[in-house]
Amino acid sequence: MKSATVLFRSSRAVAFALGALLCLGLEVHAQTDPLPSWNDGPAKQAIVAFVQATTDQSSMKFVPPAERIATFDQDGTLWVEQPMYSQVMYCLERVPALVKAKPELAKVEPFKTVMSGNREAMARLSFKDLMKILAATLTGMTVDEFQVQVANWTTTAKHPRFDRLYTELIYQPMLEVMHYLRDNGYKTYIVTGGGQDFVRVYAERVYGIPPEQVVGTAGGTKYGYDKTGKPILTKEPRLLLNDDKAGKPEGIHLMIGRRPHAAFGNSDGDRQMLEYTGAGDGARLMMLVLHDDAKREYAYGPAQGLPNSKVGTFTQALYDEAKAKGWIVISMKNDWNRIFAFE
Amino acid sequence: MKSATVLFRSSRAVAFALGALLCLGLEVHAQTDPLPSWNDGPAKQAIVAFVQATTDQSSMKFVPPAERIATFDQDGTLWVEQPMYSQVMYCLERVPALVKAKPELAKVEPFKTVMSGNREAMARLSFKDLMKILAATLTGMTVDEFQVQVANWTTTAKHPRFDRLYTELIYQPMLEVMHYLRDNGYKTYIVTGGGQDFVRVYAERVYGIPPEQVVGTAGGTKYGYDKTGKPILTKEPRLLLNDDKAGKPEGIHLMIGRRPHAAFGNSDGDRQMLEYTGAGDGARLMMLVLHDDAKREYAYGPAQGLPNSKVGTFTQALYDEAKAKGWIVISMKNDWNRIFAFE
Repeated sequence: MKSATVLFRSSRAVAFALGALLCLGLEVHAQTDPLPSWNDGPAKQAIVAFVQATTDQSSMKFVPPAERIATFDQDGTLWVEQPMYSQVMYCLERVPALVKAKPELAKVEPFKTVMSGNREAMARLSFKDLMKILAATLTGMTVDEFQVQVANWTTTAKHPRFDRLYTELIYQPMLEVMHYLRDNGYKTYIVTGGGQDFVRVYAERVYGIPPEQVVGTAGGTKYGYDKTGKPILTKEPRLLLNDDKAGKPEGIHLMIGRRPHAAFGNSDGDRQMLEYTGAGDGARLMMLVLHDDAKREYAYGPAQGLPNSKVGTFTQALYDEAKAKGWIVISMKNDWNRIFAFE
Repeated sequence: MKSATVLFRSSRAVAFALGALLCLGLEVHAQTDPLPSWNDGPAKQAIVAFVQATTDQSSMKFVPPAERIATFDQDGTLWVEQPMYSQVMYCLERVPALVKAKPELAKVEPFKTVMSGNREAMARLSFKDLMKILAATLTGMTVDEFQVQVANWTTTAKHPRFDRLYTELIYQPMLEVMHYLRDNGYKTYIVTGGGQDFVRVYAERVYGIPPEQVVGTAGGTKYGYDKTGKPILTKEPRLLLNDDKAGKPEGIHLMIGRRPHAAFGNSDGDRQMLEYTGAGDGARLMMLVLHDDAKREYAYGPAQGLPNSKVGTFTQALYDEAKAKGWIVISMKNDWNRIFAFE
């Protein structure tokens, strides 16, 4: 009876202490691993060490919350970019609707080839032809119409190999990094060579990244009025920002105006973004995803003797620069115990 | 003695209740006026009603936090724009340093006229000459060098009439509106015809608006390397976004990707931004500052029979559109009991 009373008192004391802690606004939670899809190793350790150092006020590497900016390439860094950039897939798959609206295009190249469904012929389309398809499917409509078109595609179109929605082919380990950074006061941005308006349609739902934090290749819009006098913005075939290679730091300056403290990429298109990030004072984290897992995803890029690829080129020169500058190469095969959420 | 005990007990009870409220995370504060520099009237009432309705989950006009975007023109809306836009003043005052670095410019127009100090001759400079001065003082340097140059100017240069730093000539009532909106979950943006890089230098310190929330007229930058191999961004005389008139909604789409729920301006340059804001669904607040107080600030613009001005034109057509569409005109004279913080 006495021990029961002690226990009771003790429980009350614990409950009181817990309550007091909660009242003080302190969070009581277990030390859960913020990066469960990452195997222990230099990549995971580098991320955790960076976050701990830059958020610890007693650290020389402390970064004030307002300056905590992290940028992520999208294709090949956050989601699958093989066998073709998803946005190019979107443009090709949009052609039938375009031809339905403008039947005269059915007899005109390159639309005729796309309508034929002949994949070999489509793969042989020239860069110029591809640009014609991109211009026809990405411009000419209002920004509101475009949003509806892309939203419909992202909720229906499926990847040829995985037979999953493209928005399911997000790398779970990278989602965890973004969450972990945000939980530690970082603003996460996408900085993509893909279309800014395209990525903005699903970025909030899929990555938790709002439209204003998506930097991408951007065309101009034209302000005008529809037949009822309502203001509209129409997408124009006029390039404002080619957000690739040198265009990435230029785009970061234009859209954010601050140098990132962390940058993640996977190809030569991200080299300048990582250089620019690394050139800042204090703690900086630069990482590159290496696609070396043909079984679970893909293996490509000349580095490490992997086969060549039309998209997402990770050259030997980039690999050498990464080694020389202390950028961390993430091996999908070795560093990630899970690639997709559905696994 | 008994009454003292009662008082004591009562105080303890109050203290306990207060403590409990604080523990629950509820804020206990007096109903302080968030807009003390505003006189009671339709303008102040419209702001308060908008904020209350859009943040009340039971209201039909509720706006989810992620969509709470408010945009503010700068010149004439947040700070004094007379007798000349401050950034033009900056460019003119920058010429001596420019000539010191490149002495050959001293004999070349329009720099020769600016160096003469002859204000009448400077006032007669053509638009083309002015553009030459802007290009020479706003481009050609790295973005880091430019930040230092502007920061130095904002902490030393003074306004000819008020003999105050330009950054002291901020409208206190508008600061209060920005704070009030932010306290209620709104992201506040500057959307200015002025230079994006220029305004970003002081926007965080002066308005509490971080660089990534400044949208302005923007030129391109060029990524490269300095002599030591360090990456640099150099400001180029290549216009990417003319963030004025139709350029404002176009710039909002480019930089934010969402339609604002509230927009504040003061001139014909803001008309399209207010139209675009007002064309959205649900609650929208559009306001225009009318400069009708020659004694405390300036009075200008054809509306209401005020004298014409080279800058910040508030035309009769804008006034008529405001009335027709329910945009609220703020009278500096009648709606603001204080204009500057130093008053």
